[in-house]
Amino acid sequence: MADRRVGVLSAHLSAPAATRSSDIVACPTVSLKKFTTTRARKPPTKWNGWGYEDTRLYLNQDGVAALSGTRYPHIFPARRIMPKFRGWVEDVLGIDIRNTSPANRTKPELPPPFVNKEFMDAISDCAESTFDDGARLDHAHGATCQEVFRLRYGSFDKYPDVVVFPSCHDDVEALVAAAVKHDVCIIPFGGGTSVSAALEIPERENRMVVSCDMKRMNHICWINHKTSLACVEAGAVGIDLQEALDAYGVTLGHEPDSSEFSTVGGWVATRASGMKKNAYGNIEDLVVNLKMVTPSGTFTKQASAPRSSTGPDLTHIALGSEGILGIITEVTFRISPTPAVQEYDSVLFPDFETGIACMHHLTREGAVPAALRLQDNMQFQFGQALSAESGSPMRASVIDKIKKYYVTQIKNFDPESMVVATIVYEGKSEQDVKSQKKALEKITAGYSGMHAGAENGLKGYFLTYMIAYMRDFGFEFNFMAESFETSVAWDAVVPMCESVKERIFVEAAARGVRGRPFVSCRLSQTYDT
Amino acid sequence: MADRRVGVLSAHLSAPAATRSSDIVACPTVSLKKFTTTRARKPPTKWNGWGYEDTRLYLNQDGVAALSGTRYPHIFPARRIMPKFRGWVEDVLGIDIRNTSPANRTKPELPPPFVNKEFMDAISDCAESTFDDGARLDHAHGATCQEVFRLRYGSFDKYPDVVVFPSCHDDVEALVAAAVKHDVCIIPFGGGTSVSAALEIPERENRMVVSCDMKRMNHICWINHKTSLACVEAGAVGIDLQEALDAYGVTLGHEPDSSEFSTVGGWVATRASGMKKNAYGNIEDLVVNLKMVTPSGTFTKQASAPRSSTGPDLTHIALGSEGILGIITEVTFRISPTPAVQEYDSVLFPDFETGIACMHHLTREGAVPAALRLQDNMQFQFGQALSAESGSPMRASVIDKIKKYYVTQIKNFDPESMVVATIVYEGKSEQDVKSQKKALEKITAGYSGMHAGAENGLKGYFLTYMIAYMRDFGFEFNFMAESFETSVAWDAVVPMCESVKERIFVEAAARGVRGRPFVSCRLSQTYDT
Repeated sequence: MADRRVGVLSAHLSAPAATRSSDIVACPTVSLKKFTTTRARKPPTKWNGWGYEDTRLYLNQDGVAALSGTRYPHIFPARRIMPKFRGWVEDVLGIDIRNTSPANRTKPELPPPFVNKEFMDAISDCAESTFDDGARLDHAHGATCQEVFRLRYGSFDKYPDVVVFPSCHDDVEALVAAAVKHDVCIIPFGGGTSVSAALEIPERENRMVVSCDMKRMNHICWINHKTSLACVEAGAVGIDLQEALDAYGVTLGHEPDSSEFSTVGGWVATRASGMKKNAYGNIEDLVVNLKMVTPSGTFTKQASAPRSSTGPDLTHIALGSEGILGIITEVTFRISPTPAVQEYDSVLFPDFETGIACMHHLTREGAVPAALRLQDNMQFQFGQALSAESGSPMRASVIDKIKKYYVTQIKNFDPESMVVATIVYEGKSEQDVKSQKKALEKITAGYSGMHAGAENGLKGYFLTYMIAYMRDFGFEFNFMAESFETSVAWDAVVPMCESVKERIFVEAAARGVRGRPFVSCRLSQTYDT
Repeated sequence: MADRRVGVLSAHLSAPAATRSSDIVACPTVSLKKFTTTRARKPPTKWNGWGYEDTRLYLNQDGVAALSGTRYPHIFPARRIMPKFRGWVEDVLGIDIRNTSPANRTKPELPPPFVNKEFMDAISDCAESTFDDGARLDHAHGATCQEVFRLRYGSFDKYPDVVVFPSCHDDVEALVAAAVKHDVCIIPFGGGTSVSAALEIPERENRMVVSCDMKRMNHICWINHKTSLACVEAGAVGIDLQEALDAYGVTLGHEPDSSEFSTVGGWVATRASGMKKNAYGNIEDLVVNLKMVTPSGTFTKQASAPRSSTGPDLTHIALGSEGILGIITEVTFRISPTPAVQEYDSVLFPDFETGIACMHHLTREGAVPAALRLQDNMQFQFGQALSAESGSPMRASVIDKIKKYYVTQIKNFDPESMVVATIVYEGKSEQDVKSQKKALEKITAGYSGMHAGAENGLKGYFLTYMIAYMRDFGFEFNFMAESFETSVAWDAVVPMCESVKERIFVEAAARGVRGRPFVSCRLSQTYDT
């Protein structure tokens, strides 16, 4: 018995080497749909900055901040301008709009690709490929400030030599087998929104570098309503997947800030977190099974059981592996019924510390909406500065709306220290959301929390999608911005924010950065820790 | 940047080799208490069967089933007898109480220990040890039917040669270092309730075998109320730990059926699940960090952060490793406030399929109490047969109490098919539990669910603690029993139960087992899958 048991445990630890996809037990499928996001439907993105090509924050001919294109219409009741923004960036960020730093007009010239002919011959049947310089440039980087800086003003040290587009799991198996056989380096590519340098080519790499773009593997393999599971190809993009799942009345509930561009495989490979993790969990809580093609075979668990206690779980090695162990091709997720009701909301607190204490209290009591994020005063003011031109009184800026006089004079909130928690409620019914609100308000009242309405809540989420567009706006005026995320214990939140700010000020001074850096903090709570 | 990143990821994957305990960053501790479970306080357990020595199911001088000792008093309002049980085992299980199979009176004779003198010399300073045959026997097995059978009627093929008792993490590091140096085999030992053969010594093992009993490492290292984390030594026993945490107003919420005996380290090493997983999660959801002493050093994460997305998570390799990779010495858990209100309850359904459908519905709607378990008809009747002698009308058997006539005649429930769901509610307040009940009843009503009261709920949990005592009762009469646990998708529950039953009938017939096997099923739901 003991020997058999040790065998079972060993098998768990050596699964990658043992399994190929043909061994996998198929899950019973209830519905099956091919949803495709064709190039024609997928709007083009910028080659040297964040996001859609048609969406750009700029100063219009009147010198007023405006957003090009037609996206995010719910934020713009009237014209697509933000009258307060320019003044705020000048006063608070110290940006001088005459001091411009425009990006290079043309793409850098790329060195000719290094081609491993045997490899290219071997894969000619299993994936389309391109040596196009534009494609090679697009696949050479992620979305950090440093990478966008290089796109705007310089070039990269290394570029992938070819970009390949597998269409299915078997293509990837063939690609990886050929890569092993002919000694080339593969870098998996999802939405290109990596902020961990996972797409950068290591300097010491001297094999042919192949960027494996997963975009064609964007299908839902199956949805099983009985087991509440769905299997999705790794190249599916967040918002496209959500749209497709919506049609079946289900949701994954994973909404990272990048969900307009990032992919299923990228979420798993980077252990992503999403805005609604309170309701649905982080990506590691949603993944039930996956397929990862490694140099020694495809790793997967033999069954997508809801839980297993028969040994170590190697799925947690794939989660967070950032492409260094293999290519994730399919992921099986728990799914949930689409919530019937979704509502935005917000609560004001007199200061950050009070807001944090309240967030901790809410978490301890389990009175936590699907999404709950606390913005510090800097970020709160930032959000106010982004207010669009109001099209109606209802759209007036939030401080006006909630009676500035009342907030600052009667409640004695200091505009220079007040903070806002933005909220998304999700529920099975109006009644459900109502009772969630009641539970929350009972606690926020104890922390001088002041209900601040849905618009302010919505604005918080708008800020999320705008943040990278604003970074690129800053680039135009010699201003650089970056965001960091981390996870700390509750009692470390305030000291950590203070330490990070201090360190940035010290480093900026030491490096001769002009002006005082603008540092703001946002807190998303997760577990009760 | 890419090189640095690959370095970070590699470090995650090679952590065991890199770290020793002296490198660990200490967590801020708010309270610190040494709680000890001395031998004097710990009641003795049986050497050849389940549980406490003073607790035994037997037929008294009147031939009536009775429970010895004074434990589980809340189940016995009057005398400690179960008048219906004997009739039930005779009629349903086909047990002939004249056909006895008493256990051996004496312990088996053990071969002399094989002693690696260099090892024993090396550890003389770091842990007490014993070559006592009684201790060697106690540490030679877990709690499977097969192991207890061997204890009662035979012997084991192999025994540990020595039992050692480390007192702290450093002791374990020294033990493991000595084991590596002198080539001995260590088997970690917690509560001895293993049902996966993890304590059995592999036949091919020819080194000295050392059972490492963790019982002295039963302290709470620290509790941090601010971060809602507690660090506990691996040898702490479930109920003792809960008692100690209670004093601080917090709970771990992990209650496996074995919690009277099993330990923290055992839970982690076996990926345990507990009765209240709906409220608190399974063990893998509760563990934030751990220390595991491996032959190449101590594995731990450098910080007990609430979450990390910086790479693969090797904690999931320790979880479920069943002692083959190292000895778990300390575990850091999330803790929760002790719930103010706890209530038992139960609901009857006309049949198993309806009960399952309702459980699935409850899970989908999130209307799930802390514990919710569905017993099939066989197990329901089993529970009824265990009813104690009633001391008051309130304690009458449940069918009487909830008006058998009403259930069977008006509601048309068939006593041969009806099933019961047993429930534990936990809440912050009476009001909280009340609203949980309301949400549950709204759904159960749609499945002909009938409220069946707290007593029946309590009985379900009594059954949990009694099950292994009853197995030993069966042994006395040539009757063998075992339980299996698994996790399947919702739509596989009924087919799997049927297949398992059928297979057992077929195998029993093929092996000439007398009588028809009694097979009953219980469903605990976890995720919505």
